[in-house]
Formats: sequence, structure tokens, C-alpha cells
Amino acid sequence: MTTQPAWPSAGIGALALTDLLGRWAAADGPLYRLLATRIARLADTAELPAGLRLPAERDLATALSVSRNTVAAAYQLLRDEGMAESRRGAGTRIVPHRTTPAAVHRANGFFAGLLEEAVVEADLSLAAVDCAPQVAAALTNPDSVLDRAERDALTRTPGYFPHGLPDLRIAIASHLTERAGLPAGPSQVLVTTGGQQAVDLLIRSEVLPGQPVAVEDPTFPGALDALHRAGARVIGIPAGEGVDPERLEHVVRTHRPAMVYLIPAHHNPTGLVMATQVRQRVARIAAAYPDTLFVDDMTLAELPLRDGPRVPPLAALGPDVPNLVSVGSLSKLYWGGLRTGWISGSGGLIARLAATKAAADQGSTAFQQAIVAALLSGPHEDIVKWRGEWVRARYDALAGALRASLPGWTWPEPDGGLCLWARLPGEADGADSSAFAQAALRQGVAVVPGRLLSASYRGASYEGAHSGANAFVRLAFTQPPDVLRAAARKLAAIPPPSR
Amino acid sequence: MTTQPAWPSAGIGALALTDLLGRWAAADGPLYRLLATRIARLADTAELPAGLRLPAERDLATALSVSRNTVAAAYQLLRDEGMAESRRGAGTRIVPHRTTPAAVHRANGFFAGLLEEAVVEADLSLAAVDCAPQVAAALTNPDSVLDRAERDALTRTPGYFPHGLPDLRIAIASHLTERAGLPAGPSQVLVTTGGQQAVDLLIRSEVLPGQPVAVEDPTFPGALDALHRAGARVIGIPAGEGVDPERLEHVVRTHRPAMVYLIPAHHNPTGLVMATQVRQRVARIAAAYPDTLFVDDMTLAELPLRDGPRVPPLAALGPDVPNLVSVGSLSKLYWGGLRTGWISGSGGLIARLAATKAAADQGSTAFQQAIVAALLSGPHEDIVKWRGEWVRARYDALAGALRASLPGWTWPEPDGGLCLWARLPGEADGADSSAFAQAALRQGVAVVPGRLLSASYRGASYEGAHSGANAFVRLAFTQPPDVLRAAARKLAAIPPPSR
Repeated sequence: MTTQPAWPSAGIGALALTDLLGRWAAADGPLYRLLATRIARLADTAELPAGLRLPAERDLATALSVSRNTVAAAYQLLRDEGMAESRRGAGTRIVPHRTTPAAVHRANGFFAGLLEEAVVEADLSLAAVDCAPQVAAALTNPDSVLDRAERDALTRTPGYFPHGLPDLRIAIASHLTERAGLPAGPSQVLVTTGGQQAVDLLIRSEVLPGQPVAVEDPTFPGALDALHRAGARVIGIPAGEGVDPERLEHVVRTHRPAMVYLIPAHHNPTGLVMATQVRQRVARIAAAYPDTLFVDDMTLAELPLRDGPRVPPLAALGPDVPNLVSVGSLSKLYWGGLRTGWISGSGGLIARLAATKAAADQGSTAFQQAIVAALLSGPHEDIVKWRGEWVRARYDALAGALRASLPGWTWPEPDGGLCLWARLPGEADGADSSAFAQAALRQGVAVVPGRLLSASYRGASYEGAHSGANAFVRLAFTQPPDVLRAAARKLAAIPPPSR
Repeated sequence: MTTQPAWPSAGIGALALTDLLGRWAAADGPLYRLLATRIARLADTAELPAGLRLPAERDLATALSVSRNTVAAAYQLLRDEGMAESRRGAGTRIVPHRTTPAAVHRANGFFAGLLEEAVVEADLSLAAVDCAPQVAAALTNPDSVLDRAERDALTRTPGYFPHGLPDLRIAIASHLTERAGLPAGPSQVLVTTGGQQAVDLLIRSEVLPGQPVAVEDPTFPGALDALHRAGARVIGIPAGEGVDPERLEHVVRTHRPAMVYLIPAHHNPTGLVMATQVRQRVARIAAAYPDTLFVDDMTLAELPLRDGPRVPPLAALGPDVPNLVSVGSLSKLYWGGLRTGWISGSGGLIARLAATKAAADQGSTAFQQAIVAALLSGPHEDIVKWRGEWVRARYDALAGALRASLPGWTWPEPDGGLCLWARLPGEADGADSSAFAQAALRQGVAVVPGRLLSASYRGASYEGAHSGANAFVRLAFTQPPDVLRAAARKLAAIPPPSR
């Protein structure tokens, strides 16, 4: 009794397999053995389903930036261990073993680094910060920020708050009203387990499989992963130097997407701020297309690299436009370990999302929400100031080291955020950042190849080989300055790959 | 520019609307106005989509246990306010306004109580406990249970742990190995945001839309909600007095479900333990059907009402059967506000689930996981003992009061858990528990009508009107004993409804 494989005659592309392999080379032992071991594990977990055709040796060797002999030896080892079989003219396949429906889902390769335990010397792939000292102190000693009577009242409740803890909803509404210039009441706020859940809940609640969703290209890979899992049809709008509003309006008019997902300040990965007139135009488009939800991801909004007025969210430009929605998070300012994010929108939307969240997890962790509410109402501005200095020191270190060691690299000067979107030098199309990222990994430096942030990349079929994204890498500047400087020197020692 | 309503000519059944109305009557004011206000709000949130036909006045009046005049006046008010329109022969419809894809999702009515703020005097609908004192002390003073060096090391990490904090994975693996008789290593454990997320992630990762999933009928409504949202085809196996293993095997052989979801100890809502020979038989069925995932929800396993040996999980009966999976939670033992649950299964399954969790929320709240790990490794047995006394006092209070006030009610004597599955007296089919629950709500007592726990109930089309579930109510005994006694007296004052 075996189930038919989900794609009995399908193959996996070399780049898609590269994503799944993750940091396969970051361990001891000969490369061919590391490669075979990792492929065997993926077959074991059904991430590579039974019957799947592996890439041709030559293609995989190119994608991994290794010799063809290495791939050939790995495939031979898999055959020897009964995990694969080869037939003349039909390539090498995973031996039918056991498959599950999960085989048709595929994690975005972006998360490979988060999901595996391989340690690299300099991880420039994860735009994540350590815990701000004010936050660590509150977590360690909750009584320093909590009122004792309120704290005891909380632990007497059942602890289920699908909308979020009332105190935190109030604190977030005040934060949006007073600091972001976005008037909001507590009933317009849903607390989520970080910004990732905010995006995922919006998609689960508001996007049906097959519906179009427009995103900037490149964009936050976590949004792409959630969209692909939901079966959305993702439409990318070029945004390497900011979105062209004409093009955005054309996409909305033509495709009538269920959702448009934007990161106006500061864009992930470019770090740019959407210009004032573009933001105003987007708010007008939203007013004209009430059946499309326009999502403004503000996760990085409070991380400017320069002084200046705070960029107001799109929703502040259309106060009577109920399809303008904001997503926020404290992960990049306070700590990712808090897993505290939110969605702010119309009361009706929030009610639908709360029902979706009840089915997903019945609410986020309750006690910590009280601590976060106290931090938002208390030392928030101190934390913003502290983190601002933290980020600027790191950006200066990385940018300076890159300019010194890799003068051919170029990037748009970021206005804020935690990443730098660097173009590798090369021919007209630029270099192949996927092969570069593989070579970097073997030097102990993890970077994200641009295709993983591109809407045109879907693993098995990457239609965007000629899109700009493949010539770029995303470099997060969240490691200590000396680690960033050493990483730049290591990257400079890698021979520039060309297509 | 308006989108076509998702079901332009569709209507909603009276029971389905009753679910969505939730605790509509638990407020001040005339009933017709409360009813109209709640319907208008549902239309506003698109939970009742534009164009939807409302139930006939007579049907809704019966379902809500109110007079037909009340419904007629409510519909009139909706027409007066432009929210509805009536046409001869075509009934009353929500006026086209704005609809969203969310309109085709529907929350299980079970969650209505969790999602609204209406307060009832005695809530017997939510099987949720307050925070155990040992847990509250640790949350308030983390340094009392955490090692300072480990704590500081944690806040220096980025805080993203899609698999769960390593220390908590180790603590859960030890807990399963040493206390539950289920040998497990940390790589076989995924930490989740409560048992609800454990069930939801299993469904998202392992069940494709349209695939069959078998459940006990009645069962945990949170599982039903997640299954319906995922588009699974839910097959109920009668379980009012325990599952017949012949029937289970027949369903598995005939339908080849992607998943079988079971609650062997202590079943929600009946509180029964699956007999030893039935559990052994289920483990053998699982071994024979490796493409079906058998999920054992152990959330209530450590809440026995009587002394005796602990019931081992199904997975302990088939240590070499990788499709036997366990779900656990501390919500009912420690506190729901922790939102700490887990999945234990094969390493391959855990790897797929971690990728799914990364896309859902990139991991649960990190710092609290360190506290929970310390509690699991420390005062766990004290908490089990304390909670056991807590539960038994409440069960005795409710059961005694029901026997005294409502001698016609019967229920299977529960072996454990937090609920009592009571059959209302009536004719052959029993009474109509939906109407009874409505009448109880107006007396300030919230109970769950049995149909919300039945696989045959899907809101719009309830095919199980003649299934046993509709004659039952689920009563949680988690309120203080005096509240439970007062509730029983109030329930006794309600005239028994009949079909």
C-alpha cells in the first residue's frame, strides 16, 4: 500500500535543490559525503518526495559552485545506500520510499539558515538583533515594570486572548496614535506572534488559493513563503530602486489582487523609504480599489540610519480607507525572541483575523504581553535611541569594509533597516549571486542570494534568472562590527563568479 | 467596482447563524435590538457576506428560542437601517456592501465565547484553568527557576527558534521518556503555541484540501475548526462511549485518510479513557497503514479524576511506527496563558513541521520557554498533584449539584479531563441542546451545545440533526465550586426544550 508520489515524473531544479540543501557544506568531511548525507536526509523527511528526479550532475555542480566529480560521487554514494537509482536517459531519482502531502509544500530556502543547526563564523543572512538591555531587564524581573495587582489579576484569568491581551492592545493603539501618527483604538489592533504571523494571518484570512497578490520585487522572503504555501499567485513589481506607482496601479487595475504587500519604510532588503508622493499615490489607489487590501509592513519603520522626521504609515494618509492595513513588530527593535507583532486595521478586519488566530493558536503567550505593554508605554523611546546607535555602528562597519575590500560592489544607500542590497560586479546581467553565496558559505560567511527575495523565484521553476535579483546579495548588518569587517575581507577573497 | 459575492444566491441556516451570533443576548436592551445589532456587525465584518439570504423568521426564532416577533422586529430594524432588504418570495438578504474572501471561512461557533467580550455569570463553555501557583511564581520571578548564565546567553541570541528553545525540547523529551513511557529525543519534539497550534500545524503540513481526515464524534472543536479551514473532508466515528475499533479500521481501509485524530486519554468531551485493547488495536492499524498519520492528543492525559496508572500514549505502543504522533500541552495543567504545547514524532515529520512553523510565526516566544523548561524539570509532579485536587473538587461539586437538581440528566462517568458530556432528557432522540443553550445563556449560564463538537456539523448544513450529539451539552467544570453549584440550579429552572 503506497501512495502515488505527488509528482511521479517531476524533477527538481538545481537552484531549488540548492535552497533545500541549506548549509550542507558547513560541517567536517569530504564535500561529496556532506552532499549525499544532506540529500538522503531530505528524502527521509519527504522534502524530496519518492520518485523525484535529481538535477543533472553538471547543473547541480554549477549551482553549488563545486566540481562535477563531487556531485557524481555524492550520487554514487546515494545509489550505494539504496536511496537513489539511475537509469540511462532518465537521470537519477530518489527511490520510492514513503511520501506525504507535505512534499508538495516547500519551505523558502531563506529559512534554511533558521531551521538548521550548522554554525557559520559570520551569519550575514539573518537580520535579527540581540535583546535590548531594557527588555532583558524587564523579562528577568517582571515586577520592575508590572503592577502587582494587575499581574495577579492576569494569572487568575484562563489566559486565552485571541485578540491579544487588552493592556497590550491599548498600548499598541496609543503607540500608533501618538508616535506613528496613525489614530487607532484597541479594537483596531490584533496582537500576533511576531510580524511573520501578522503576514501569515492576513493571507490565511483574506487570500483564497489562486488569487493574485502583488508584492515589491525584491521583498521580505517570509511573506513570499507564506504566500506560496497559501497557493496565492504572486505578482512582483520591480522595486530595486523603489516602486513605480504607475506600474503598481496598472497591476492593481489589471489583476485586481486580493492583497498588495508593501514595505514603505524601510524596505527589506533595500533599506529605502518610499517617497512621499508615491506613498500619497498608493493611498489614493487604495481608496479607488476597496476590494484590494493594501498592507504596509512597518516592522523596520523605527530603524532609521539618518536623522529626520518619522515616515508616517500609508494608513495615516487614508484615514477613511478601510483597506489600508498596517503590520508592526518589535522583533527588530526590542528582540525577536519576544515574538510580538500586530496588525492594525478596521474593526471588521480585526474580527475576522481574531477568528483565524483562534483556529491557529488561540492567542499568543499572555504573561509576556503584559511586560511588552509596560515597555511600550515606558522606556520605548530609550530603546529606539539605543538600538539606533547599535544599528548605525554596524552599518558603518560593514559599508566601510565593503568599500575598502570590494570596490566593485554597489548598493542603494539605505535610509534605514538592517540590510544592504548589494549588486555583485559582472557583465550586463551582473554576476550569479547563487554560486557566490555557495562559495561564501564554504568560507564561513552566510549571505542571502537575491533570488530568494524575488517574487519570480519559486524553487522548481525560477523564471527570474534574468531579473535583476539574481545579481544581488542581501547582507544583514546585525553581527558585531568586527565580525562584519572580517566577513567583508573573506568575501573579497572569493573569485567573482560569472554566468 | 464591486467583487461578486462569494455565494450570491446562498442562504445561511438558522443554526449556522446562531453560532455566529454567539452571546448576542448577553447585554442590556430589548432582544430584537440586540439581535439586529449583532447581525449588522457580522455584515460589517463580512462574516455575513453581501447578498446572503438570512434564515426564515420562524426558523431563526426556533433556533434562538425566542418568539417569532423578536426576529421579525430585528429584521425590520435591519431594513430600516439599510443593512438588509426583503423581497416577496426571496426572503431577507444582507444588502450588498462589501465582501471579502474571508466570508467563505467560518469560525466554529465554539470560539464565539473566546472571541467576544460579553460576560456571563457562569461560563461552563470554556475548559480553561487559572494559573497554578508554582507557575505564577516562576513567571513573576524568573530568577527563582533560571540559571543566570543560561538566561544571559539566551538574550544574546537572535531569539528565533522555529523548532523550540533547545532546553525546552530537551525537557519535553525527558518528560515523555520518563513520565509518559514514550522514549523520545529532542530532535523528535517541536514546541508549539499551545495544543491548538500543534493540531493546526499538523493539518497545514500533512493534509491537503479535500483529503479525508477521521475524528471521533464528538471531538475537540478546535480540531474541527482547523480541519474545516484547511478544506479537509472530515469523517466522524461515533465515540460517545468510546470508538469501536472495527469501525475505525473500516474507515481507514475505505477512505485512506491523511490523518486520524484521537483523544485516547481523557477524551474531550466525554472524559473517557480508550480501553487498553482498543489502544493496542489502533497501534496495529497504524502499523498497517503507514500513509495515515495517527495523532494522539495528550492535552488532558495528566488530569485523571481517579487514582490509577497513567495511560501510555498510542506512540508508546508502536515504538517503530513513524506515523504514530503525539500532541501535548501544558494549558490545562499549568495555565492556558503559557500557550505551550508540542508535537512529538519522527525526525522527518518534525523537520517538515518546523518549516511550516517558520512560515507561520518563526517560532514561539523564547524567554518563557526557558521558564517552562525549568518547571517541567522541577516542580512538575507538585503541579500535577495540586491541579488534580483542584479538578476533583470541581467535578464533585458539579456532578453532585446536577444529580440533585437535574435527576433526568445522564452522562458517562468521566475518567478524567475537565468536561462532562451530559445528555438532556427527552424523547428517543433526546432534547434539542441548541435551544437549551440559548435559553441557558439568557439565565447567565454558558454551555456548549453538542452539535459544535460533532464532525457532522458544518454550520450551513448540519447533517447530524439526528446524530446523538444534538441531545448533549458539554459542561466544563473549571469554575469555582460555588459557581458550578449555582449554575446547576439555574439550568434546572429552564423548561426542558423538546424537538
